[in-house]
Amino acid sequence: MIEPRTRLCRSFQTAPAAVAKADTAKYLRSGLTSEGFEAPDWLVPDFEDGTAPGMKAEAVENAVELVADTSFSGEIWPRVEWSYARSALRDRGRDQIDTLVRELADEIDGVVVPKLGGLEDFERVDAILSELESRYGVPEGSVDLAIILETARARTSLREIAGRGSDTRLSAIVFGPVDYTAELGGRDLGDGRPSWSGLLESLSNETSANGLIGIGGPFDELYVTRAGVGAYNADGYASQIEREAHLGLDGSWSLHPKQTIQANHVHMPTPSELEMALSRIERANAAIAEGTGAVAIDGRMIDEATLKNYRNTIRTVQSIDARHPEQSTTRYDDPLIDRARTIDVDGSDG
Amino acid sequence: MIEPRTRLCRSFQTAPAAVAKADTAKYLRSGLTSEGFEAPDWLVPDFEDGTAPGMKAEAVENAVELVADTSFSGEIWPRVEWSYARSALRDRGRDQIDTLVRELADEIDGVVVPKLGGLEDFERVDAILSELESRYGVPEGSVDLAIILETARARTSLREIAGRGSDTRLSAIVFGPVDYTAELGGRDLGDGRPSWSGLLESLSNETSANGLIGIGGPFDELYVTRAGVGAYNADGYASQIEREAHLGLDGSWSLHPKQTIQANHVHMPTPSELEMALSRIERANAAIAEGTGAVAIDGRMIDEATLKNYRNTIRTVQSIDARHPEQSTTRYDDPLIDRARTIDVDGSDG
Amino acid sequence: MIEPRTRLCRSFQTAPAAVAKADTAKYLRSGLTSEGFEAPDWLVPDFEDGTAPGMKAEAVENAVELVADTSFSGEIWPRVEWSYARSALRDRGRDQIDTLVRELADEIDGVVVPKLGGLEDFERVDAILSELESRYGVPEGSVDLAIILETARARTSLREIAGRGSDTRLSAIVFGPVDYTAELGGRDLGDGRPSWSGLLESLSNETSANGLIGIGGPFDELYVTRAGVGAYNADGYASQIEREAHLGLDGSWSLHPKQTIQANHVHMPTPSELEMALSRIERANAAIAEGTGAVAIDGRMIDEATLKNYRNTIRTVQSIDARHPEQSTTRYDDPLIDRARTIDVDGSDG
Repeated sequence: MIEPRTRLCRSFQTAPAAVAKADTAKYLRSGLTSEGFEAPDWLVPDFEDGTAPGMKAEAVENAVELVADTSFSGEIWPRVEWSYARSALRDRGRDQIDTLVRELADEIDGVVVPKLGGLEDFERVDAILSELESRYGVPEGSVDLAIILETARARTSLREIAGRGSDTRLSAIVFGPVDYTAELGGRDLGDGRPSWSGLLESLSNETSANGLIGIGGPFDELYVTRAGVGAYNADGYASQIEREAHLGLDGSWSLHPKQTIQANHVHMPTPSELEMALSRIERANAAIAEGTGAVAIDGRMIDEATLKNYRNTIRTVQSIDARHPEQSTTRYDDPLIDRARTIDVDGSDG
Repeated sequence: MIEPRTRLCRSFQTAPAAVAKADTAKYLRSGLTSEGFEAPDWLVPDFEDGTAPGMKAEAVENAVELVADTSFSGEIWPRVEWSYARSALRDRGRDQIDTLVRELADEIDGVVVPKLGGLEDFERVDAILSELESRYGVPEGSVDLAIILETARARTSLREIAGRGSDTRLSAIVFGPVDYTAELGGRDLGDGRPSWSGLLESLSNETSANGLIGIGGPFDELYVTRAGVGAYNADGYASQIEREAHLGLDGSWSLHPKQTIQANHVHMPTPSELEMALSRIERANAAIAEGTGAVAIDGRMIDEATLKNYRNTIRTVQSIDARHPEQSTTRYDDPLIDRARTIDVDGSDG
Repeated sequence: MIEPRTRLCRSFQTAPAAVAKADTAKYLRSGLTSEGFEAPDWLVPDFEDGTAPGMKAEAVENAVELVADTSFSGEIWPRVEWSYARSALRDRGRDQIDTLVRELADEIDGVVVPKLGGLEDFERVDAILSELESRYGVPEGSVDLAIILETARARTSLREIAGRGSDTRLSAIVFGPVDYTAELGGRDLGDGRPSWSGLLESLSNETSANGLIGIGGPFDELYVTRAGVGAYNADGYASQIEREAHLGLDGSWSLHPKQTIQANHVHMPTPSELEMALSRIERANAAIAEGTGAVAIDGRMIDEATLKNYRNTIRTVQSIDARHPEQSTTRYDDPLIDRARTIDVDGSDG
């Protein structure tokens, strides 16, 4: 198990696992072979809403075939079908999880479960995973779990569900604003969907309190047309995901390789953030070496929450550098990334 | 019991049950005989803050007399006196409930209880209703309950109180911003009251999670004066209730027949919302008939939360059409309302 | 024990208890001798982040020496070191509390504990205080407790921690946005820190529901430079603390005597608020005297929440007048403050 805070999920990119094209695995294949800043930290082969009803079986087959044979640099997290409210969907989700655990337990990092209800529904999913791990001789807890927060019940139970974090396979909570708004009966009266800012605050808090990853929702206005010319909506998506980073969410949902580029950038420490973190932790290490046992800058103690934040910044960069060296060497100049590679991050962590 | 989501409460209009006029029942009578879009879904004969201290007994008498003899098309929900903090008010509230259950159990739909405290206060009210139903030989649960959310304690206990929803007579939670702001010590320093947007998000979520109706608070700036001419403040009220609809609240508080017209309009599906809902559910029904068992539009599955939302839209229109045909035939053209009347809404609901 | 709502904490001013100057107690001495509107309601000798690591022992000594000998008009609340996450800090905090209870139990009003975690951490602090009170023969509950809300865990447990209010020594909850934002991983991408408005709403609600004092976080942009000239940032701080007053928080954090002046002003009822409160309560008292038993203005009953609010306004002014007569006589004209001094505030409180 990677230490929670250094687990990367700047970009959570869903890819339909089967589409009505000559190559039904076109988007999945494209995601698995993406490179550079287009490579998402988490690729999510989607069996649920992204895949047409008649193509669910083929979606699972595509995933089994391609994922078994990939050298993808990030994590792989298939999204299965599920619904707290419909047993037929749960049955299909269970079958899909069965196939994934049987065929791909070593290749995938976890499964993403949508439309989760309250705590009892969470425990139902958890029990299914345990049972299937046991049946197929996979070590308990091998397959992690991410949930989509998109029902009123899950929101009501957010604290309890997130609170299971440290003791369970739960790794991430992802906001699903479309279904959430539909379930609450929210209406677009010309200003789009509600921003649900109270929910996002709580999501950031509960994931942070429990060492989980918190991820924002999708942004589907991919293109904008201005005076007759359409273009990729770079501003719209960037604004949304900067808001998410501002609130402390760890990553953003991507529906397109360009969104993935942006999410990877926004949720990556800036060079000046990295420089600040390195110089502070270097000073903390020096303080330990000198035996002063505390870090002061200009006579003021740097408190532990701030140091922890700096360590997280450096560990995030180290994780990016380990998985995607082409990203880190593009973003940071050589002396900076060298300091990040060689620093003793934990040296001052008592 | 009507299925929760189709129970109409677009407009929650309070009317003082006794006022210092020749006809002390003037406003109550006016509410009970309102027609067209001026007829509120819920008329609330008010014994509490709308009625002067010296006229409480007359208010109850007016309600008993007029309500027993009305052909009002909506629901009738008297608001009694109550306070978690003052036993004298609870005693008066209990007496008022006693009279209502004894005299009007068949005519009223429920009672509205203000200034509720925490869960134990909710249970106190619930127990009083059960006891009085039993005493007067009224079937248990005949008289429903709506509460005003206007104390810090009720906000703290919102999740637990709303969580009783499906098992109790609780039907609606209504926001009371004036008392709420007073209790928290919120101050108007020139920008009016706080918008309490976090509370409104939670109210929408908890009512949705438990099948309850959520209703926004009153707007008392009824008139605005511009360059010496006063006029009904149509913009101000519309902005507030559109915000409430945006967040998924089901209805709004009205203090005046013009506000009722606006609340009935805003919380009524627009023709294009109805058209969309009908065409989607018609397609879902066709999919069931064809045996495909899932609804796809352009190859993309329509998920259950969205279908549920469409069904709610149609059921809301059906409820309006049943109670207020003059409203539905005014708002929708004939072919559209005919489709809404004849569709098999539940056909595709597994 | 003063009745919770009349306990003053318009201004919570931290002062480093030791600084690297010839007089290491310079700021603490300055706070303890402040007068007029510069005198904070709560002076907080700071052993934590305001004091350099090498000066902690001297900070405690300075506090013991100066506080034992002061005639400061407000309350004194030292902030000790603490952290739910680091036992070394808790050990130091315990030693600091030990010294405070042993040496200053009669002089201080309570201790401020930062970086508190969940409920179990709160109970750890509470137990330490009880044990030390017992050890040094100080009556149980003599030393009150204020906590800084600045960790994800404390936010998660806010309702439970605040809920202990009436049964424990807990008196105030103070927001700590810097550490809170760091712990959640919130980032400043050019717009500063998140405003955490959902948290502030909850803080106002939970403190109100439990008779506690709620206090906003520090504002450290003390000076602004405009066209080459620096000046005290009176607008920036005033905007923040007016927002806090708007939401019903009782006081604001001050880092500087000028901020204290502003916090004392903003959280002090305005003359027109006081006039309104006095005239309403005078009328309520008259109604009781006349035996009508309820207060109506223009035929409309003034509800209890509003009356309670008016009583709080008057009691706040009475508390200010008792502690800081130079403030009340400056802010209110003689006839007004005389009415506030002589009114029977509780006369109409049943």
